[in-house]
Order: sequence, then C-alpha cells, then structure tokens
Amino acid sequence: MLQTAEAPWSQAETQSAHALFRKAYQRELDGLLATVQAQASQITQIDDLWKLHDFLSAKRHEIDGKYDDRQSVIIFVFAQLLKEGLVQAEELTFLAADKQSKIKALARL
Amino acid sequence: MLQTAEAPWSQAETQSAHALFRKAYQRELDGLLATVQAQASQITQIDDLWKLHDFLSAKRHEIDGKYDDRQSVIIFVFAQLLKEGLVQAEELTFLAADKQSKIKALARL
Repeated sequence: MLQTAEAPWSQAETQSAHALFRKAYQRELDGLLATVQAQASQITQIDDLWKLHDFLSAKRHEIDGKYDDRQSVIIFVFAQLLKEGLVQAEELTFLAADKQSKIKALARL
Repeated sequence: MLQTAEAPWSQAETQSAHALFRKAYQRELDGLLATVQAQASQITQIDDLWKLHDFLSAKRHEIDGKYDDRQSVIIFVFAQLLKEGLVQAEELTFLAADKQSKIKALARL
C-alpha cells in the first residue's frame, strides 16, 4: 500500500483517530447484526440459509482485514469508511486540514 | 467404512429408503433453520454472531457429508439418523428385519 506523506500525527490526532475508528467499527457491527437478524427471520429455504452463511463468511473476512489501525494506513482506512458511510466528513475535523483533504480525495476514487 | 453384509436390497426397500432419507434431511434442515432463527434473534454481542457463524460452518459441513445415499453405506447413515432422532424406529419397518436389526444395533454404539 502507498505510504501517505501528510504531516506528522499529533498525540491528540492519534487518540481521536482511534476513538473514531472504534466508533465506526461498532457501527459496522451493529449494522451487520441488524442485517443478519432481519435476513434470518425471513428465511424459509435452506438455500437462503447457506446464502446467509456465505454472506457472514465474507463479511467476517472483510471486517477482520479492514480495521487496520497502523498509522501508515489509517488515512486509507478512513477513506474507505467515509466512502461506505461508516464515518462522516464532519467527524474528521479533529485532523489537520491536509489529512482531511487526503481522506476526502481518496474516498472519491 | 465397513461394508454391511445384509440381504440384497429390493427395489421397494431402495425406493422407501430414499424417501425416508429425504424426509430426515428435511427435518434436519427445518430444525437447523429454527435453531439459527432463534439464536440470531437473541444476539446482542458480535462474538455471538461469530459463534453462530462457526456453528453454521460446522453444520453445513456435517450435513454435506452426512446424507450419503450409496447403498453400501445407507445402513450406517440410518443408524446415525436414528441415534440423532431424525428417524424413528417405526419408520424403518419397510426394511427387511435383518436390516432393521443392524441399524438399531449400530445406533446403540
């Protein structure tokens, strides 16, 4: 993965980034849980149960890999979360302007 | 797997065996679906969602391997189904007595 060349991270930025990270993670899990419960309650065919199983397998794999909090990649993770609506642009204002711009630009790719 | 040495299978036995097989399979799937729906509706923690995922993975694997309808193994499969309560002894009366006895004996192992 490309390294970002933004300004060094302050301690406040790092702490707030981790807090927002956890928030997005919780939102994702809450959403997944709601989706699974809604889908499970509507299943009548076994094929749909296996489809739900496939969906869960894929999501678990995706979520396991997604929340990488190494500082070298966190800009990319936030861009992805912004793209997916798990983080809102207004929540990124604790970051220096160059980081916010970079995240927004990446999210549009 | 051991071969069974019971009397040859009549056409009627084979047909009824396959019908009972499908019935047991449907019972298993119905039971699994009910279990998953009940569990899913009670989940509040993500760990429990992953546990449900693990449970489904194991069940899918088990069910995929279990309903082996080759005549050489069907006695063993019925023994397993009997043991698990997916087939009742009274449902096996279409089979010659030696086959019923063998299934019941294997189910007690």
